[in-house]
Amino acid sequence: MKDMIIIGSGPAGMSAAVYAKRAMLDVLVVEQEAFCGGQIVNTSEVDNYLGFFGIDGYDMAMKFKEHIDHFEVPVQKGQVTEVKQQGGNWEVKLSDGGTLSSRTVLLAMGAKHRKLQIPGEQEYSGAGVSYCATCDGAFFKKKKVAVVGGGDVALEDALYLSKLCETVYLVHRREELRGAKLLQEQVLKTSNISFLPFYEVREILGEERVTGVRLIENQTGGEKQLDISGIFIAVGMEPDTGYLSDVVERDKTGYIKAQENGVTSAEGIFVAGDCRTKQLRQIATAVSDGANAVASAVKYLSGGHPSK
Amino acid sequence: MKDMIIIGSGPAGMSAAVYAKRAMLDVLVVEQEAFCGGQIVNTSEVDNYLGFFGIDGYDMAMKFKEHIDHFEVPVQKGQVTEVKQQGGNWEVKLSDGGTLSSRTVLLAMGAKHRKLQIPGEQEYSGAGVSYCATCDGAFFKKKKVAVVGGGDVALEDALYLSKLCETVYLVHRREELRGAKLLQEQVLKTSNISFLPFYEVREILGEERVTGVRLIENQTGGEKQLDISGIFIAVGMEPDTGYLSDVVERDKTGYIKAQENGVTSAEGIFVAGDCRTKQLRQIATAVSDGANAVASAVKYLSGGHPSK
Repeated sequence: MKDMIIIGSGPAGMSAAVYAKRAMLDVLVVEQEAFCGGQIVNTSEVDNYLGFFGIDGYDMAMKFKEHIDHFEVPVQKGQVTEVKQQGGNWEVKLSDGGTLSSRTVLLAMGAKHRKLQIPGEQEYSGAGVSYCATCDGAFFKKKKVAVVGGGDVALEDALYLSKLCETVYLVHRREELRGAKLLQEQVLKTSNISFLPFYEVREILGEERVTGVRLIENQTGGEKQLDISGIFIAVGMEPDTGYLSDVVERDKTGYIKAQENGVTSAEGIFVAGDCRTKQLRQIATAVSDGANAVASAVKYLSGGHPSK
Repeated sequence: MKDMIIIGSGPAGMSAAVYAKRAMLDVLVVEQEAFCGGQIVNTSEVDNYLGFFGIDGYDMAMKFKEHIDHFEVPVQKGQVTEVKQQGGNWEVKLSDGGTLSSRTVLLAMGAKHRKLQIPGEQEYSGAGVSYCATCDGAFFKKKKVAVVGGGDVALEDALYLSKLCETVYLVHRREELRGAKLLQEQVLKTSNISFLPFYEVREILGEERVTGVRLIENQTGGEKQLDISGIFIAVGMEPDTGYLSDVVERDKTGYIKAQENGVTSAEGIFVAGDCRTKQLRQIATAVSDGANAVASAVKYLSGGHPSK
């Protein structure tokens, strides 16, 4: 019986592991991938986590892993298939048939950006293809870029990038934008944002880095090519929380509902990082979440505070 | 006219500066001390900010400063005496008579731990005298320590330390504890917490590091000496926010009221780090706050979202 099982070893899970070990909790991290680090493992350069400038994402993941190794945090490879209440405790079931027991569970499995699944997307990922304007926008100052999508995040990304970039093409397959009306108004009146309704991206072009995109107008089938240095794909995120639908409250997208203290609707279950409802999904905010969720769990485990 | 003036250059202010520069805001940091870094400048060792293990607080402050230097963030030395609305913008007045103007202000001036002001306190600060159990508790595993205070934080600290330390003396000048009833019950039933009511600390004893404390029983004047390795002083914090009482809503202690997005009661004023209302005051949570507050300010500046 563990004090805490942490599902996921991205920045949120690793920060939580540090805090849990320092609070002398008997903690275990479960990670389904070969490496710890989560999304940062595949990030080319990180400039915005205070203390590290111009670091390769993989190197940063190694730094973080070294940190938890100092505290001798055990990391078990495994894919979680079920989290289930058992008496006052929790059972975590793995795809290999194994079962772990713990007094608390910290959900820190992150979220994945939805892909366009078109030629060039995988090839130029991190070389002009980005899924996060706040993370990567600064690498495209005075350049031409495209944002793909029509929701809040796409509109916010277009507005954010309009301050940095020469031109921002907003490519959306429909005429209507789904994002908040206020954001729509802002986008439409920003002079260096060019809205391209009814367009879909068919191919991302490049040589080493992105040089352009090939679009199709889906009403007429007409083709168009844009010369751009970067493409920001904002067609949604998918937190892998389906197996938790009966365990904790989630929002429509599947994010686990919680404030910054990481307390969920289920007693003894806490959440940190990209898989929770929050304004800003960044390394810095994930690391903070890990600390906060452990503080909440420590209170819960001493019985001093109710979980809710 | 700046886009953002950041008051304070601790982890919250410096993280905000990175995010503001990456969002191409015209930003200025105002710091009253000779060095950037806030409380960490005087911290002996930091182990709990992911990516850095066993780093001296001063070295960490230098790392953070290097980071903002990469973005050429201007830092102006000055003490803020007033923040005042002027049209739709804000004026920041300095003690030297200077006035700065900005579209937004980020309050990141931190908070100070209240001192006991007794012999030995300053001398052994960072050498057994601590003001933060979550920060420093792990350095006192299996040791005897004392916690001074009777409020929520003192009780939480005592409970937190009871898991790590051999014995925790809870020294309080009254019989009644001020902290939450649930916490009181937990403290009183924890076998390795020894509650010492009516005792006041008169002197912290040591040789290089803390070795004990001299107490006075304030009902009888009787003296008592405890052999301890650490003393955690939890008699309150003081955010220096008095001059903001007419500008933003604050709680009873003086913390500026805000959720994790850093939005305050005043349009265009944001808050990050120890001076806001929050569960956990740590480097990690301050760095996250800086990122969040800038994200909120960017939305505010594009007019896409109202501040409240």
